Amino acid sequence: MADKLLKKIDEKNNPCVVGLDPVIEKIPKHLLIGNSIIDVANAFREFNFSIIDSVYDLVPCVKPQIAFYEKYGSAGLQAFKDTVDYAHSKGLIVIEDGKRGDISTTAQAYADGHLGVVKTKESKQCSLGVDLLTVNPYLGSDGLTPFVNVCKEHEKGVFILAKTSNPGSGEWQDRLIDLNKEEQGELISAGIALENKRTTLYNLVALRINKYAQECKGTRGYSPIGAVVGATFPHQAKSLRKIMPNSIFLVPGYGAQGGTAKELVNCFNADGYGAVVNSSRGIIYAYEKLETPKNFADAARKATELMIADVCTALKEK
Amino acid sequence: MADKLLKKIDEKNNPCVVGLDPVIEKIPKHLLIGNSIIDVANAFREFNFSIIDSVYDLVPCVKPQIAFYEKYGSAGLQAFKDTVDYAHSKGLIVIEDGKRGDISTTAQAYADGHLGVVKTKESKQCSLGVDLLTVNPYLGSDGLTPFVNVCKEHEKGVFILAKTSNPGSGEWQDRLIDLNKEEQGELISAGIALENKRTTLYNLVALRINKYAQECKGTRGYSPIGAVVGATFPHQAKSLRKIMPNSIFLVPGYGAQGGTAKELVNCFNADGYGAVVNSSRGIIYAYEKLETPKNFADAARKATELMIADVCTALKEK
Repeated sequence: MADKLLKKIDEKNNPCVVGLDPVIEKIPKHLLIGNSIIDVANAFREFNFSIIDSVYDLVPCVKPQIAFYEKYGSAGLQAFKDTVDYAHSKGLIVIEDGKRGDISTTAQAYADGHLGVVKTKESKQCSLGVDLLTVNPYLGSDGLTPFVNVCKEHEKGVFILAKTSNPGSGEWQDRLIDLNKEEQGELISAGIALENKRTTLYNLVALRINKYAQECKGTRGYSPIGAVVGATFPHQAKSLRKIMPNSIFLVPGYGAQGGTAKELVNCFNADGYGAVVNSSRGIIYAYEKLETPKNFADAARKATELMIADVCTALKEK
Repeated sequence: MADKLLKKIDEKNNPCVVGLDPVIEKIPKHLLIGNSIIDVANAFREFNFSIIDSVYDLVPCVKPQIAFYEKYGSAGLQAFKDTVDYAHSKGLIVIEDGKRGDISTTAQAYADGHLGVVKTKESKQCSLGVDLLTVNPYLGSDGLTPFVNVCKEHEKGVFILAKTSNPGSGEWQDRLIDLNKEEQGELISAGIALENKRTTLYNLVALRINKYAQECKGTRGYSPIGAVVGATFPHQAKSLRKIMPNSIFLVPGYGAQGGTAKELVNCFNADGYGAVVNSSRGIIYAYEKLETPKNFADAARKATELMIADVCTALKEK
């Protein structure tokens, strides 16, 4: 999946991701033609399809956030699945933002359903069928391994949360943690300065992610076992880049959340690869600033073009 | 919700929860009558309804793990929703094991969809409509507050992951963390012995959970802001009980995962309340040991009776 993702980045000549986060308060009113939950799901579907039609030739990936769909139960989840399939039909790679995480058989169920195949009575079928999924590490490695194994088996990928983009992400992620000798050695080898033999939780999680990443690198040196690293924390991104040299970063927080292109270049390697940058609200609701609701898809295209120019300029100047 | 949960525990005279985790490899073969994903969802529905019919008069709650349903996409999620509704029709409280967690508007979407109400064009409707939901704290308080607010507004509850039941839960959760002066004081007041002014991540998360819990206590002193504390870690449960005196614990890990009734009594307060204990595989697949596949529901009832006797005996002996 890492090779496939890099190839798609080359094809589109940028690492930008359009986040598909439909909310009823923000999508153009004319898409809502009834009052039921099914009407909402239909509106989301039409909204997403129009956005995809408008940007699929510009970007390598889209990133639907599943919370906004499952919120509306099975009808919402069907709109999610239809969006995944439509994005695939347009040649896009689909990153699902699900932040799933659980233990053993449950983690396996998430991995099979979102990335792998599920069993029926006599066969195996693809279910949600996304290409990459965000994963929460709180439960420990025995919650991560089933995802990694499914990635290896089905050529899929994950982005494991390391340092998230939200203002309060430091509450636990930035805490200093005692390290054992092996961890100290590994972090020092990676060029990380320790604070009294300690480092942050996000650096420690990154060390684990890197171990998984080393198990499965593609032909261009990158691994499908990636990390989420917020665009809003450029300093932290620098050390994370050192700890996980072969992981691709999913970088949220650009645009609406305040991250700038200049800041997020730290998420990239010297070769110009190593990260994909997401913007959701700044693109799909660009019509509020740039156009009328009827022209929401055109506005999304303009906003995507502006984002690509901004990110690519910053990368060239790095 | 805390009052409602305690009332239901009194009514059934035990704190046991039946976990509804259907997997195709384990449910009786005769329930699968076709080869499609919809057939699987139908089998799960029939399986769950029979289990509920068999145990609803015995226990206060059921706990479906949503991973096993969403694995099968919208059809699976519909089976989940139908299970929730059926359990409610039998007077059961429904705890959803979803381990959801995200930031700001996304956390709000999860909270609205699973616990609260969702907007359509002109109204608000209940969507998944569970009573309590498990929540992952890795992203920090700005990911937790939307859940807590929905709990307050709609009389629902959450169990925030503190110390999970899996063997590898210690990988990050047990790490020693530097504390500020305020945290040191709060933990010492709660009777926790610090290690060189440090404590574990799970104790620190518990301190935050307790703050939320204090904001919304029911008439009997318990809060709907609870914690997940694995039955497999009795020593850790002792300190967590001290830090979160008013939170109800959801205790997984009894039975199939190796937790014993004698160990999990530490999750309870001296008043005999303060926890609900879940068993999934040990109950719903009890037919493999006790009965034939045709009698899976009877076997589940027998296993539930055995669990109740075991847990209640241990609680009396505490």
